[in-house]
Amino acid sequence: MRVYNFSPGPAALPVEVLEQAGKEMVEYNNCGMSVMEMSHRSKMYMEIHETAEALLRELMGIPANYKVLFLQGGASQQFAMIPMNLNKNGKADYVLTGEWANKANKEASKILKTHVAATSEDRKFGYIPETFNFTPDADYVHITSNNTICGTRFLGAPDTGNVPLVADMSSGILSEVMDVSKYGLIYAGAQKNIGPAGVAIVIIREDLLENENAAKLPTVFQYKTHADSQSLFNTPPTYSIYTAKLCLEWLKGKGGVEGIQKVNEAKAKLFYDFLDNSALFKGLAEKKYRSLMNIPFTSGDDAKDKDFVKQAAEVGLVNLSGHRLVGGLRASMYNAMPTAGVEKLVDFMKDFEKKA
Amino acid sequence: MRVYNFSPGPAALPVEVLEQAGKEMVEYNNCGMSVMEMSHRSKMYMEIHETAEALLRELMGIPANYKVLFLQGGASQQFAMIPMNLNKNGKADYVLTGEWANKANKEASKILKTHVAATSEDRKFGYIPETFNFTPDADYVHITSNNTICGTRFLGAPDTGNVPLVADMSSGILSEVMDVSKYGLIYAGAQKNIGPAGVAIVIIREDLLENENAAKLPTVFQYKTHADSQSLFNTPPTYSIYTAKLCLEWLKGKGGVEGIQKVNEAKAKLFYDFLDNSALFKGLAEKKYRSLMNIPFTSGDDAKDKDFVKQAAEVGLVNLSGHRLVGGLRASMYNAMPTAGVEKLVDFMKDFEKKA
Repeated sequence: MRVYNFSPGPAALPVEVLEQAGKEMVEYNNCGMSVMEMSHRSKMYMEIHETAEALLRELMGIPANYKVLFLQGGASQQFAMIPMNLNKNGKADYVLTGEWANKANKEASKILKTHVAATSEDRKFGYIPETFNFTPDADYVHITSNNTICGTRFLGAPDTGNVPLVADMSSGILSEVMDVSKYGLIYAGAQKNIGPAGVAIVIIREDLLENENAAKLPTVFQYKTHADSQSLFNTPPTYSIYTAKLCLEWLKGKGGVEGIQKVNEAKAKLFYDFLDNSALFKGLAEKKYRSLMNIPFTSGDDAKDKDFVKQAAEVGLVNLSGHRLVGGLRASMYNAMPTAGVEKLVDFMKDFEKKA
Repeated sequence: MRVYNFSPGPAALPVEVLEQAGKEMVEYNNCGMSVMEMSHRSKMYMEIHETAEALLRELMGIPANYKVLFLQGGASQQFAMIPMNLNKNGKADYVLTGEWANKANKEASKILKTHVAATSEDRKFGYIPETFNFTPDADYVHITSNNTICGTRFLGAPDTGNVPLVADMSSGILSEVMDVSKYGLIYAGAQKNIGPAGVAIVIIREDLLENENAAKLPTVFQYKTHADSQSLFNTPPTYSIYTAKLCLEWLKGKGGVEGIQKVNEAKAKLFYDFLDNSALFKGLAEKKYRSLMNIPFTSGDDAKDKDFVKQAAEVGLVNLSGHRLVGGLRASMYNAMPTAGVEKLVDFMKDFEKKA
């Protein structure tokens, strides 16, 4: 029996997608082979590849002057590739809103001079800063749009003037409507809201592809290489892109990002409403900045939290442990988590609270 | 109906593997979720991950003082990561036996000084050099063990003395028995003999992980990062590794590398015997150095070659075009290509020749 999987990533995928992928595994669309066996230069594969890009463009409303890249190495590789590719003046601003933002900043500081434009570390990353000390001639400003660990999110894009805004959207992408044109570069590992692990998406404004410093990098690390070759410079992770395509089709069928945002808001409300009225559990993030995707919470008692995780797993509610850095509990509810899963979790929490 | 797929990569996978992957797609081993949905830190996934590594070690006889890494970005990313990580004296030797060796050399030359220790370009890469002009204090010597495009292969490892030998084995790995201890580093994109695209294997001797220059690289580009974290520094391409594990299990069931080598030799003999006696078709590589995996050939007539590809596809023999750089025809017959596929191809060629 399928469980409700609250993993922060790799995360639950729509069961309809898995069913279709399973059916098509040995032979795709009567073509005599699996998607896994297709040459990445074949017409059959190219249809999949181009459809995936077209769907992402449609669902996110990506303007024509942006390139969409399918890359490998996850968001962690982007922590290095971004400063490598955008370095012109040798400086960049980072907004520190949690562990992943810190990591991005640390990696960038090996390549250029980084400056902390704001941080929310003073209140344990429980909020998002609203005032920033930006560097006027920075090459870019980096933010992490959603904090997977502490459960906060940016409410829209901060105004960085003429400095390109770069956002790690790994755990927020496609969960709510946002305006791509406010960003110079958006990146995301797929394994939360896009598809399975093994592919990362980079959405980059075309003018940022032109950079003399980047042209000296190894070919495979230049964004321009992949932009110029439609992400087919070398063999892309074809099956991950195919599965992402199925997930994007599924999302379109759910009314697109607008449609799923309503569902996500309703799921989060259901959970937060319970949390705010619970005598046992409390949330970690400050109300105004709460994430729709990742909700860290705790009973305040380590042993009780552990017991909760164990009992929940027994009834098919799994992966509810908090991140090792903050402990406690966490429910990640990406697009593929059905409302029924959140309802079952809230009901279970009510029962647990009564018995506690 | 499944076809016989002679693609050079991504390539045919064992149908038994695809059937199992299809069956387990929605729910793996009664665990309530797909492999794609598992946290890479979960016990369930770790079993898969560790089994994949253990199988590769067993099948290749990898000594204990070598680390096995599962990386992303394909062999092309390794073209850069190898000089980045092994650079101590700032120089490396490259043996040029074809397009991929040339590309590896070109990328390395952005990072250190490369020296061509031998080349077979004088006879259109139709052979493997047997004398080399090695640099005594080079950081490493790089070879491409099997030339996917021109269809040649090294017969064993050249003796590089104390200089570590680095081999791109993308299209030869696991096809015949070889002695890992003769190499400092072996790498391979998975999409030929290991599994689907999206994961690259690096097998590295532990002493090569210690390098002050490498320690300054972005964390994600250091081999040591991945060696120290069992390839779990960041989210690995979990589903690609799972599928690779299934392929390795399949290979073990075929008698391992020793067993499949016999099959590969028999398949190649069947094809080469026909080719050597054909009045119409001739092979491109010189006999002594012929690849077991990739066999480029031609009728000598472009129009006839194109007609051959078309007619072959009609009877379910697909992807027989030669690489665009050399034209003509090519049959890639990796481990997963059944003998029946090669028999059918040879029969078809006989018929085609009669009618020509």
